[in-house]
Amino acid sequence: MFDNITGAQLKAMNGEQLEALCEELRKKIIKSVMENGGHLSSNLGMVELTVALHYVFDFPEDKLIFDVGHQCYAHKMLTGRESGFAALRRRGGLSGFPKREESAYDCYNTGHAGTSISAALGIAKARDLAGRNFNVIAVIGDGSFNNGLVYEALVSLKQLDTNILVILNDNGMSISPTVGSMHEYLEALKNDVEERYHKNRRAGIFERFGLEYDGVYNGNDVNEMINELKLVREKLKHGSVIMHVMTKKGKGYSFCEDNPEATHGIGDRKPIAASVEYSQILGEKLCELARNNDKIVAVTAAMTGSLGLSGFFSRYPERSFDVGICEEHAAVLCAAMATQGFKPYFAVYSTFLQRSFDEIVTDVCGQNLPVTFCVDRAGISGADGETHQGVFDLSYLSMIPNLTIAVPKDKNEFAAMLEFSAAYNSPLAIRYPRNGVHTFGKTTEIEAGKWEVLREGDDKVAILACGERAIRRAVRAADIAAESGVFAKIINARFVKPLDDGMLASLKEKYIVTVEDNVLAGGFGSLIAVRFSDSDRRVKNFAYCDKFIEHGGVGELMDDYGLNVADIAAYVAGLK
Amino acid sequence: MFDNITGAQLKAMNGEQLEALCEELRKKIIKSVMENGGHLSSNLGMVELTVALHYVFDFPEDKLIFDVGHQCYAHKMLTGRESGFAALRRRGGLSGFPKREESAYDCYNTGHAGTSISAALGIAKARDLAGRNFNVIAVIGDGSFNNGLVYEALVSLKQLDTNILVILNDNGMSISPTVGSMHEYLEALKNDVEERYHKNRRAGIFERFGLEYDGVYNGNDVNEMINELKLVREKLKHGSVIMHVMTKKGKGYSFCEDNPEATHGIGDRKPIAASVEYSQILGEKLCELARNNDKIVAVTAAMTGSLGLSGFFSRYPERSFDVGICEEHAAVLCAAMATQGFKPYFAVYSTFLQRSFDEIVTDVCGQNLPVTFCVDRAGISGADGETHQGVFDLSYLSMIPNLTIAVPKDKNEFAAMLEFSAAYNSPLAIRYPRNGVHTFGKTTEIEAGKWEVLREGDDKVAILACGERAIRRAVRAADIAAESGVFAKIINARFVKPLDDGMLASLKEKYIVTVEDNVLAGGFGSLIAVRFSDSDRRVKNFAYCDKFIEHGGVGELMDDYGLNVADIAAYVAGLK
Repeated sequence: MFDNITGAQLKAMNGEQLEALCEELRKKIIKSVMENGGHLSSNLGMVELTVALHYVFDFPEDKLIFDVGHQCYAHKMLTGRESGFAALRRRGGLSGFPKREESAYDCYNTGHAGTSISAALGIAKARDLAGRNFNVIAVIGDGSFNNGLVYEALVSLKQLDTNILVILNDNGMSISPTVGSMHEYLEALKNDVEERYHKNRRAGIFERFGLEYDGVYNGNDVNEMINELKLVREKLKHGSVIMHVMTKKGKGYSFCEDNPEATHGIGDRKPIAASVEYSQILGEKLCELARNNDKIVAVTAAMTGSLGLSGFFSRYPERSFDVGICEEHAAVLCAAMATQGFKPYFAVYSTFLQRSFDEIVTDVCGQNLPVTFCVDRAGISGADGETHQGVFDLSYLSMIPNLTIAVPKDKNEFAAMLEFSAAYNSPLAIRYPRNGVHTFGKTTEIEAGKWEVLREGDDKVAILACGERAIRRAVRAADIAAESGVFAKIINARFVKPLDDGMLASLKEKYIVTVEDNVLAGGFGSLIAVRFSDSDRRVKNFAYCDKFIEHGGVGELMDDYGLNVADIAAYVAGLK
Repeated sequence: MFDNITGAQLKAMNGEQLEALCEELRKKIIKSVMENGGHLSSNLGMVELTVALHYVFDFPEDKLIFDVGHQCYAHKMLTGRESGFAALRRRGGLSGFPKREESAYDCYNTGHAGTSISAALGIAKARDLAGRNFNVIAVIGDGSFNNGLVYEALVSLKQLDTNILVILNDNGMSISPTVGSMHEYLEALKNDVEERYHKNRRAGIFERFGLEYDGVYNGNDVNEMINELKLVREKLKHGSVIMHVMTKKGKGYSFCEDNPEATHGIGDRKPIAASVEYSQILGEKLCELARNNDKIVAVTAAMTGSLGLSGFFSRYPERSFDVGICEEHAAVLCAAMATQGFKPYFAVYSTFLQRSFDEIVTDVCGQNLPVTFCVDRAGISGADGETHQGVFDLSYLSMIPNLTIAVPKDKNEFAAMLEFSAAYNSPLAIRYPRNGVHTFGKTTEIEAGKWEVLREGDDKVAILACGERAIRRAVRAADIAAESGVFAKIINARFVKPLDDGMLASLKEKYIVTVEDNVLAGGFGSLIAVRFSDSDRRVKNFAYCDKFIEHGGVGELMDDYGLNVADIAAYVAGLK
């Protein structure tokens, strides 16, 4: 139904009609997310604000940038994409995030926190230089507002001398409840009318950064929002403005309102047989280790629950640090605590760890400090698409001196690696996907740089695979090849760094096949290729090709981007 | 002489003696830096503050963290390392930065901006958890204060509930003059006594973040500093404090006082024959391109002069953006301007580009936007040591889809690549060292992914080298090997990505040698090894080994870490 609403029709609606439209949007979002998975609570909270923005501004001539972008569903429905929601986050279907390739109404792709104000400034400055005239609006949640990139943008705002509108969508959550002094400041602004409007205005933080603070509004009242946005649109002619909008995460769906963290993201509804989460093991094991070692501390960046650490945080609150969406700070905090004899575990999604890259290199590994990175959602993560795939970490980590990289074959081995980590006195990364199986044969003793032979072969070909998904595909491929009479050795290459020199030296096989849930360039297979490059050995790498991987099912994406079992099997069988 | 000063002796000095000590330190710093190179202005400004800190606090029990760390010379002289200054920044000699391996008085290694408050918080929190009792002090310049990591630390300061002292060393410079609203705020604090002390105290930005603002002091008056630090030491028992200290960059040496940017870093005094800087080409060429293309904009992160862009900035001020030490913001700003049809050039040192890693992946390459990264000081940078070597960029860049990577053989080719870049419509990185030669044969036409044969051989071995330094070593090695009768083909592999598929397919040589000024893992040689891994070709890689590379001369470090000409020559000659 929304696909029929043009901008002109929306702008012609009266207050009641707009409220009715919001109700319809809300129902549609609930239905779609319950059927297809996706971000629920944040999108429910954004309905009225989105409608008001479309009522007051003229998109796509005006530009709207969503920070992170997970809250764009109402915007997508209002811009000709309602029908696409039947295949939301599925292969070939609508992305769950803004995407320029999808619509002219999406002007900047997002997925990681904190980029929206920088992006708005860049677009606005380009507008000014080109002598054009449109409005640029960044919608950013209070969670993202903790990120250092936001501060970098704010610091340069006045200097850039351009006008943008920042809408601070304050729902008090950033997956986990929002933490920190900026959150406290926002709370004070909401509660202190004097602070908000007059007394310390000149000294207010936002004013200092060149943003006129426009007061606090109820973002779930579409007509209030429209009235205020109209006023703000005029103010934008004279300078940049920040509007503080309170929204209710999960608005209109009581289960979500009561459980905003649990309903932040809804997985797709298809049950995965025997699927369990690695994060659960992390939580249990870390609690167990911490019982006997009071130097163990855990650090997260606003995703404590999804990383499995809620239990640890409630059991060891004094040793638990959720620093908000601040991956750089988290890494330095870990490095510094390690200099004092502590044993920090930084749990984080693979894709967000990219934000800590320089600190991993310089602070942690440069000082050779025993920080353990628990790299969750590694490999293809699926439905969230390009900005959330964890397919780069083996590459950007394996180039760093002093860092050891472990990749468990299953959840039991992950538990064993965590035990191993407790006494390990150097930087360590353990990378694992979200879901896994409990066992993949017995767990053998973990020693840095030592691999495990899972299956012997006929000395012609050895498959080196790292991580559960790669190993499972390697085993299936080997089984198929065995039908053609080629019996491949299968090795659980559970340390990507250092490589198992002893085992590599002892290999009799001329043909080496590598399989990994990571891009080819700089990954595990690349290390093996380098190792054997000046020898008669033949190395064939199976890894993801050099493309950004879109959203879709994990299995189908693995098939299509480089880890197809049939291809691996055909290669191995061809060595007969 | 300072090596004889123990903490107890320093603490026993009277005011006059302390002032005399400062004068001696200042003379010694000038002498040492003029002889050996190093950071001059910032260290001259820090003398009195450093002496005062050592007078009031008890190091190494108390902990002192220098942000970036280039201002630690007086600290090093006072902690038993004066004699080491004869070999400052030379191989085997004193590091120009704090180094835990060097002294117990250096508690946290630094080199990149903005880490000190995070690190201080981590150390202080570890102290609290361990039930210990010492003071933790971060000394941070106003330039570093623009960095997002500082904000991330400040946001979490109250929540971490520990006590640290932040000394904001405000000299108004961050190599380039400090920019942005935080700088403006600091200026206001210095000029506005009411703001500083009372009126808006509760609303002051620092108070909001849980730091008691202790007022503004003259950091070049040792006795004033001592008095205030004694008072602050007491305040630290009850909470965190920020002390705003004004220092004069280059204090006591009029040439430096008048030229703080030019005297920020002094190169070593030995003249390098025919050595010229790539940055000069960047500045000239970009001005030329901008004359005919009004979409070209230039972005820097606080090092406009050292990147060669002062001329561009004065000629095209409206298209020039120095955003301060904010590499993440710089990259997003470029991406956003590119969405609007602009052609941004982000010039940055290789080692600092690491801070933009996630934004290069997600914002620039994820959206396939035509941003050009001018990656200066790539390869071994020499005297600054571990934290400043640019030896990782080929690895962390080549794994990113959509990115093209060019590496010029000389300055003329660099100019040609910049011309090529102007019409190139995808993300592009051009990496180059500081110094170079003007010509290395004629410049042939640049086409993405097309290499150049520099010398034909006898079809047995081909050396693929990328970048001026690697090519020069390859040529020298080939010349030596030729004396043994092996005539190697030499190829200027001027695009690391994409590789030149056509030329690779046409190679007749069985033996391929790669040479690059980058680490082995994930670098150029690794891409070549992967390309030929499932063939009869033999690939031998010469690149830096898997270690952090200390400070020293560029040539000797290249020799010792993997690019020794004799080794390359011996390998090639051995193929006879």
